[in-house]
Amino acid sequence: MVYSVIGTGAIGGYYGGRLANAGNEVHFLLHRDYEHVVRNGLQVDSVSGSFHLDDVLAHKSPDSMPKSDVVLVCLKTVNNALLGELLPPLLKEDTLVLLIQNGIGVEADVQAMFPGVSLAAGLAFICCAKNEPGHVNHQCFGSINIGNYSCPDQSRVDALLADFVAAGIDAHLVSYDEARWRKSVWNMPFNGMTVVMQAQTDALLANPSMRALIKEQMLEVIHAARHLGVTGIDDGFADSMIEMTLAMTPYSPSMKLDYEFHRPMEIDYLYSRPISIAREAGFEMPKLSMLEAQLRFLEEKNL
Amino acid sequence: MVYSVIGTGAIGGYYGGRLANAGNEVHFLLHRDYEHVVRNGLQVDSVSGSFHLDDVLAHKSPDSMPKSDVVLVCLKTVNNALLGELLPPLLKEDTLVLLIQNGIGVEADVQAMFPGVSLAAGLAFICCAKNEPGHVNHQCFGSINIGNYSCPDQSRVDALLADFVAAGIDAHLVSYDEARWRKSVWNMPFNGMTVVMQAQTDALLANPSMRALIKEQMLEVIHAARHLGVTGIDDGFADSMIEMTLAMTPYSPSMKLDYEFHRPMEIDYLYSRPISIAREAGFEMPKLSMLEAQLRFLEEKNL
Repeated sequence: MVYSVIGTGAIGGYYGGRLANAGNEVHFLLHRDYEHVVRNGLQVDSVSGSFHLDDVLAHKSPDSMPKSDVVLVCLKTVNNALLGELLPPLLKEDTLVLLIQNGIGVEADVQAMFPGVSLAAGLAFICCAKNEPGHVNHQCFGSINIGNYSCPDQSRVDALLADFVAAGIDAHLVSYDEARWRKSVWNMPFNGMTVVMQAQTDALLANPSMRALIKEQMLEVIHAARHLGVTGIDDGFADSMIEMTLAMTPYSPSMKLDYEFHRPMEIDYLYSRPISIAREAGFEMPKLSMLEAQLRFLEEKNL
Repeated sequence: MVYSVIGTGAIGGYYGGRLANAGNEVHFLLHRDYEHVVRNGLQVDSVSGSFHLDDVLAHKSPDSMPKSDVVLVCLKTVNNALLGELLPPLLKEDTLVLLIQNGIGVEADVQAMFPGVSLAAGLAFICCAKNEPGHVNHQCFGSINIGNYSCPDQSRVDALLADFVAAGIDAHLVSYDEARWRKSVWNMPFNGMTVVMQAQTDALLANPSMRALIKEQMLEVIHAARHLGVTGIDDGFADSMIEMTLAMTPYSPSMKLDYEFHRPMEIDYLYSRPISIAREAGFEMPKLSMLEAQLRFLEEKNL
């Protein structure tokens, strides 16, 4: 299968890099890092085994990229409008587009832009960052849950999963809605609260009042999901997410990095969409709604 | 009537100062400002008319103060444990203690310390600050709502009210519970949110998401009060408090000043008590509970 990666940041560099390192044909769309990667290749420092790609199939524009069997979209969702230009050159009849992005409602919007295209969601449980050009630093975890959104042929999703697993990635098939809501249990509290409180995950959890609040916010997500018919996430998942986070090195989620570098935050898909989807179904998420408002306020001052 | 003021900060200096300026006998308990006030008197710069008191009845200790008909307690509530030492020298059989303090539950705790003493609540709607020794700056508003908590003789509260009015203070008698909850409608959103968002009142209200959140928090207070049987505060009061705040000069509430100067914040009486009183009656205040947790987190880092 021919793979393409749109958005070669930490996520695109890591998962695309692993696929290429395992021998797959992977084309990378690069922007600021293009010259560096062409000259120096792509370096992935990883707790699961570091590697270096010497000859990267690097592209400055999607026009030089091949029609692809699988496209990994690893942009920040705030840039998804760019897909209108970036995606069409890569599409053929049976292309599967895997959106490795955070939040709720992403596929619905991309599907509206590309009505006939097969979409799947990729939810990455991973701590990684790209702090220099062409250099990905993978600190912990690394699994990815893949859920089929609109691909009529499940065997194509299965084939994608098999390539991920063969490349040494801890990948799992899950139901689409559960995949997105399950990831939101961690994302919604920690992304926003690390921004508003200007603290990393470990500092938040060290304070008993804050730890209780984080758990309440997690339960808001779990109960919203249940209200919407996503029954696979039990209340105990909140405690296990907190335990997992306690075991992590102190971490700044992507939204905190976006805020610190004065980049747009993914408030729409991480907060506004799930909150409004739940509200339309009659379920309020008061604490995460408050967090959304606090983030809107900070964003206005920050950009 | 003989008046005493415990806690000659902005509030004690302003209301006590007005009473003294109108010719009442008012004794002031001073701490850091004592020497300055003995030498220079007390200066009140006020939008309602500035004045200077040359000969202030200043005291360093309650032991030199007279038994008083009325004691104005103008301490921050975080210092209320001091009342165990400060109040007894001033008490006679019919002393009325007016607690001009923020929050919910203050009188219940002071009553437990002094079971037989007559208490009333004073809720000041005022923007004022003491930025230098012996110098109060009153920027806007100035009214005070007085509610009888445990004075068996209402005529003593009426007499106090008459003295306040005669001194040029816009004072009103209201029912005790309504007085405290009505003030909390402004206090609970703005005190905490100006701290957490590191912004003054005007900046908060200039952002549409934040303004909506502030109103939702105000409605939490109004609905909690209604659930507790305080029926005099209708939903429209939230809008009128927002309109009033928009008309104010940009303002840092006392909790924001406390935070900036690394002093303890009045989280207990402003947040924890009303939230737990409402919860015990079956009413949740989710957004203000979240704010309480955020303040606990910041306080731990700040002190």
